[in-house]
Amino acid sequence: MEKINIMINGLPGNVAQKMVRFAIADDRFNLVPFSLTGQDIQDNTVTIDKIVIELVRPDSRDEKTRHIFSLFPFFICIDFTHPSAVNANALYYVQNKIPFVMGTTGGDRKQLEDLVKNGSVPAVIAPNMAKQIVGFQAMMEYAANTFPGLFKGYSLQVVESHQKGKADTSGTARAMVGYFNKLGIDFDADHIQMIRDPEVQEKEWGIPKEHLGGHGWHTYTLKAEDGSALFEFKHNINGRDIYVSGTFDAVLFLKQKLDKPDLSQKLYTMIDVLNGK
Amino acid sequence: MEKINIMINGLPGNVAQKMVRFAIADDRFNLVPFSLTGQDIQDNTVTIDKIVIELVRPDSRDEKTRHIFSLFPFFICIDFTHPSAVNANALYYVQNKIPFVMGTTGGDRKQLEDLVKNGSVPAVIAPNMAKQIVGFQAMMEYAANTFPGLFKGYSLQVVESHQKGKADTSGTARAMVGYFNKLGIDFDADHIQMIRDPEVQEKEWGIPKEHLGGHGWHTYTLKAEDGSALFEFKHNINGRDIYVSGTFDAVLFLKQKLDKPDLSQKLYTMIDVLNGK
Repeated sequence: MEKINIMINGLPGNVAQKMVRFAIADDRFNLVPFSLTGQDIQDNTVTIDKIVIELVRPDSRDEKTRHIFSLFPFFICIDFTHPSAVNANALYYVQNKIPFVMGTTGGDRKQLEDLVKNGSVPAVIAPNMAKQIVGFQAMMEYAANTFPGLFKGYSLQVVESHQKGKADTSGTARAMVGYFNKLGIDFDADHIQMIRDPEVQEKEWGIPKEHLGGHGWHTYTLKAEDGSALFEFKHNINGRDIYVSGTFDAVLFLKQKLDKPDLSQKLYTMIDVLNGK
Repeated sequence: MEKINIMINGLPGNVAQKMVRFAIADDRFNLVPFSLTGQDIQDNTVTIDKIVIELVRPDSRDEKTRHIFSLFPFFICIDFTHPSAVNANALYYVQNKIPFVMGTTGGDRKQLEDLVKNGSVPAVIAPNMAKQIVGFQAMMEYAANTFPGLFKGYSLQVVESHQKGKADTSGTARAMVGYFNKLGIDFDADHIQMIRDPEVQEKEWGIPKEHLGGHGWHTYTLKAEDGSALFEFKHNINGRDIYVSGTFDAVLFLKQKLDKPDLSQKLYTMIDVLNGK
């Protein structure tokens, strides 16, 4: 099979670095050695596994793009940049007709979606690239829509643990609370318990030391008022490897779409990638 | 609202007794003080909360039924009897045109379903009357059909705890394993771990002492090979109260169906009750 050229934007960010490292080791891909970065980044290059990748700041972006296209007439972008860059980057991809997979959260999502829908290149946009979590969310959404009120009278406890630096509540936990609400449970997302203390994480929760700096553990516990029933759902992610494989699956999905002559739909989510349709 | 006459069969069995106790206290129902029982039962009556219920053995069944119908022209049966009575009881209900809710497992299920489908009275038949568990199973089935292979490469551990007397593996756990297989996990239902030791149940699992004689705790743990992800699902039921409310919901559902002039479908499951359609 022909290798797919991919450009990974967001270096020198951690997630982008991890993506690059996996991409280099993955036979299905050919890394385009350039990466869009922020205007404030000082370095001109990043070297990963002996491969030198040139950082492209917004002010030299257009010029560099012509050069990249002369080397690689076709490539797909992977975007794990900064929330503040979401809309500008998407505009750049659409204007330059570069298909893209975007895992970056934040920005004006409505504007982002409209831009892609009205553009001429397809994109997979998802706030969570972990396929199994996306699948689990889809299950919960199905239940919420199919059996509203199923857990009426149950109480809910939500605890989530993430690395110390993460200030906001888990977006996944918030989305999940929405489904539980539909299932009949009265619960305010502000009551989600956030664990951010590495000592508690390691000693009480048993989160592996090497993942204290990057993890997402979630537990949802539902209890019947009379103590007759308890339901519990957990999804614990260590590190960020799981996001890499989901992202790469999204790239393969996009490539498949591009190989089809008719491509009326432009905007895809991870649910589409999971469905493979 | 008019009270619904219900006859609860399977006395003096534990589950039937519990159903009777709840029915007596429930304003929506009027208990028909008769109960089908096995030929080997010696007692002629059972007294529950000061209400005397006459036991009806197969050899006097037809005669007694005429008498019951003279007292109660319309009633719905609830069947929590014995696996060996499943098909004979169903035949009795259909021949006497008595709508019924059957929670009894075992018997020839295909024959049972065909009988109801070809009969003229509707029935709700379900091996599990706990609505939330049925809903959770439906979620898993949805995921298995929608995202086959989602958990490919994951390992599975299934542990279930039930009262000491239960010899076979949990049917719910077995059904769940079928869904996990479709989700890409190679796991044989024979590897389900069964906990039946009351000491282990109380000390290691924290199952309340008063529920050692009647509980169903299930834990399904999925792990990614590389340790990057863990998903866990639990459903722990203490006692049998949860089955009562599901059964009563099924009775109300049947009554609703009977009130409609056109009733082409005869056989319903708890999923239909949950959907309320």
